Amino acid sequence: MDTEHRVILNVGGIRHETYSHVLKKIPATRLSRLTPNTANYDPVLNEYFFDRHPGVFSMIMNYYRTGKLHYPTNVCGPLFEEELEFWGLDANQVEPCCWMTYTQHRDTQETLAVIESLDLDGDPPSQEEVGYVF
Amino acid sequence: MDTEHRVILNVGGIRHETYSHVLKKIPATRLSRLTPNTANYDPVLNEYFFDRHPGVFSMIMNYYRTGKLHYPTNVCGPLFEEELEFWGLDANQVEPCCWMTYTQHRDTQETLAVIESLDLDGDPPSQEEVGYVF
Amino acid sequence: MDTEHRVILNVGGIRHETYSHVLKKIPATRLSRLTPNTANYDPVLNEYFFDRHPGVFSMIMNYYRTGKLHYPTNVCGPLFEEELEFWGLDANQVEPCCWMTYTQHRDTQETLAVIESLDLDGDPPSQEEVGYVF
Amino acid sequence: MDTEHRVILNVGGIRHETYSHVLKKIPATRLSRLTPNTANYDPVLNEYFFDRHPGVFSMIMNYYRTGKLHYPTNVCGPLFEEELEFWGLDANQVEPCCWMTYTQHRDTQETLAVIESLDLDGDPPSQEEVGYVF
Repeated sequence: MDTEHRVILNVGGIRHETYSHVLKKIPATRLSRLTPNTANYDPVLNEYFFDRHPGVFSMIMNYYRTGKLHYPTNVCGPLFEEELEFWGLDANQVEPCCWMTYTQHRDTQETLAVIESLDLDGDPPSQEEVGYVF
Repeated sequence: MDTEHRVILNVGGIRHETYSHVLKKIPATRLSRLTPNTANYDPVLNEYFFDRHPGVFSMIMNYYRTGKLHYPTNVCGPLFEEELEFWGLDANQVEPCCWMTYTQHRDTQETLAVIESLDLDGDPPSQEEVGYVF
Repeated sequence: MDTEHRVILNVGGIRHETYSHVLKKIPATRLSRLTPNTANYDPVLNEYFFDRHPGVFSMIMNYYRTGKLHYPTNVCGPLFEEELEFWGLDANQVEPCCWMTYTQHRDTQETLAVIESLDLDGDPPSQEEVGYVF
Repeated sequence: MDTEHRVILNVGGIRHETYSHVLKKIPATRLSRLTPNTANYDPVLNEYFFDRHPGVFSMIMNYYRTGKLHYPTNVCGPLFEEELEFWGLDANQVEPCCWMTYTQHRDTQETLAVIESLDLDGDPPSQEEVGYVF
């Protein structure tokens, strides 16, 4: 049994588990640099705690495991990219099958930037406003 | 290790975990007011129990963690908004990238209100009825 | 603390938790009839085991908790309806916001029945075949 | 209680649970061949560890439980098919309701192969490039 090479990552309360060498696969990232000396390591539970979205982390780990960065489709692009940024990963490495998801919300963001420049109160626009732009 | 500032939230059986100061970020909400005196605190397990949707709660917690309210896309808008209401959060604070999700189901609800006013038996409409309105 | 009224439901390995009175809310269903005498009750762990989809069960439990049946959008309709049938729930009780999901796959199933009647080998159709029908 | 026939599968940290006879339902696959002699069996925890995507595994297990292979819609097709391959399952066995998901990304992949043959730098294409092809 190879338990001694395993790492437990407690992400927002959900425990993910992998092999330590897997986390080295993408160098110069938050997970590749983990050591038991960091403040978020718990020697009693033998785990690292991160106060982040637990479900989305499955996609982060999948990138380390398979070498392929896929976008989830159950959360919006900006949420996922904020997670990528936290974990020190590069959104540009996204797989071709997820390019549409990657470029689509950039498109939406440009449109929204136009709306925001017109509408400064910060509330969601009425349906007429949204309908007008899209 | 900062375990003493951690809070365990057992939501429908799934244990989420965060720092106590994170829950103070959105004041006057159910989570910002938690104290060990409330009936749902379990001193043995050192956790709070809430009988709510465990998966959707990741998006609630994400709002506290990042200050940004995003809608999930794996459940419908009304389900998510019932959760927001339970947690005492304001659906209007939704991020621009999720405005479409936010306004879309309001649009649908208006249409459905029309259908319901015509169809009082409460059963799902036939495909002809749905096709006629949409 | 109200731990004595709590029920642990181990669904496919994931432990969901609720109050016993919540399970009585929808009578004559698998969950409303649970007793410690059933074969799937584990007195040591004080939990009931069900060999079913753990994630989709959040939507089943949500129906008991809120009285509203919503369809998830991360799995297809037929998968969800097979779960509903296992739990003894009536797919007709679906909320108006999820009618489209409910009727859409019925529509697809009719089309697929036509394809199947033409194509008896059981393999996925080629893209030309799919393109022809849709 | 039938605990002795249960199997615990620790997939990426999340513990899934089923009956041993369920894993025999699809012969000549990774899960049908499990024995306590394999390197990933932990006799202390009485579980098998697999360093794979924990959420997507619910759909893998659902195939064993119900005999029906459905695609999830919260991850893209290629990610799911890489998981199918790891578990030794045949993507062709997909249910009719998920054929669209199955064929759609094959269609996309052909288009992307064209893009890639034009664009050798490996970066995501600009929005103009994507818009031109789709």
